[in-house]
Amino acid sequence: MLEKKTTDFLEVLSSAAPVPGGGGTSAAVGAFASALGMMVANLTVGKKKYADVEEEIKEVRGQLKHLQDKLVELTDEDAKAFEPLSRAYGLPKDTKEQKAEKERILEDALYEASVVPMQIMETILQVVHLLEVLGEKGSRIAISDVGVGILFAQAALEGASLNVFINTKLMKNRERAEQMNQRTEAMIEEGREWKKRIYQCVLEKIK
Amino acid sequence: MLEKKTTDFLEVLSSAAPVPGGGGTSAAVGAFASALGMMVANLTVGKKKYADVEEEIKEVRGQLKHLQDKLVELTDEDAKAFEPLSRAYGLPKDTKEQKAEKERILEDALYEASVVPMQIMETILQVVHLLEVLGEKGSRIAISDVGVGILFAQAALEGASLNVFINTKLMKNRERAEQMNQRTEAMIEEGREWKKRIYQCVLEKIK
Repeated sequence: MLEKKTTDFLEVLSSAAPVPGGGGTSAAVGAFASALGMMVANLTVGKKKYADVEEEIKEVRGQLKHLQDKLVELTDEDAKAFEPLSRAYGLPKDTKEQKAEKERILEDALYEASVVPMQIMETILQVVHLLEVLGEKGSRIAISDVGVGILFAQAALEGASLNVFINTKLMKNRERAEQMNQRTEAMIEEGREWKKRIYQCVLEKIK
Repeated sequence: MLEKKTTDFLEVLSSAAPVPGGGGTSAAVGAFASALGMMVANLTVGKKKYADVEEEIKEVRGQLKHLQDKLVELTDEDAKAFEPLSRAYGLPKDTKEQKAEKERILEDALYEASVVPMQIMETILQVVHLLEVLGEKGSRIAISDVGVGILFAQAALEGASLNVFINTKLMKNRERAEQMNQRTEAMIEEGREWKKRIYQCVLEKIK
């Protein structure tokens, strides 16, 4: 069953169609990270050994479900944001007016196409924060899944960032572009620090 | 359509059922990396600008398809290898004979459950080698997708490695366990070097 579903997803992804591409797939991998966190939460809740943290883990599980749903939505939004961008590239620029009009529409489309991967990154960072709680307090038998989750989260975070950079690079409004780039770099850095700490904590418990 | 499929996969992954877990999901993320590579190949083949490399890119695309299929199979095999391990843990150890029998069966099951993530890692490394070709010779418009692919590949490689370590840790045959750990560490290191080089090359073209 699982195999069939994975294959369907992979077929759409492999095609020459530009969406889903790296941006949407980053949201999907972020959702995987969230799902692994939920699995760990589900393996913790209801166990006597973890009764003390049960309420906190239930809360974490609820938040992860919300973030996972949001990441699935963002996969779709990333595809939607690509359409106007693709249309803008195809606009004529034969006259001065057409050229100005194209530039204006393209600038807006580039902005929209950069904002979605930034939202993906923000959402993934929230998943990362919850994974830390699970690494510290979640069931020991699933500790490796917290580790896999944090690896996926950081890869998805950096994957989404590439889709910010390819779009901001082409924006005429350099001030806005640079602001977006700086925010994106800051999110990558925040993710790296959290990942390093959480992954180290997981590795020490595994090896 | 895509949204529904992603959601189905995530639902199974989020549940308390131990499979699919970090191992199988690493194979799935490795398959995403392969699919992103195929997308880049599909955006390259048939374009005049890339006519010189068309045959090579077609060859790469064929190999990626093969590796992608293998990774989907390995997702399934990872789940299958978990069953005997789970059964072995449940065996009685009341008598001396039962204890010896349990130990023997558990040792075999741990070995099998470590071999599958190692196969996942070997397959992902082959994907990585092909992503380098696409980063160098594939269509420039899809260069960020090569970057996302290599990020996913390395995260999946390290994710699978955690599922080697949790199993080898419990093996009684320490010589075999250490050999497997060393091979696993070497694959992580190989992946890191390739990733660093390929990602740097992508970033330079994007930023």
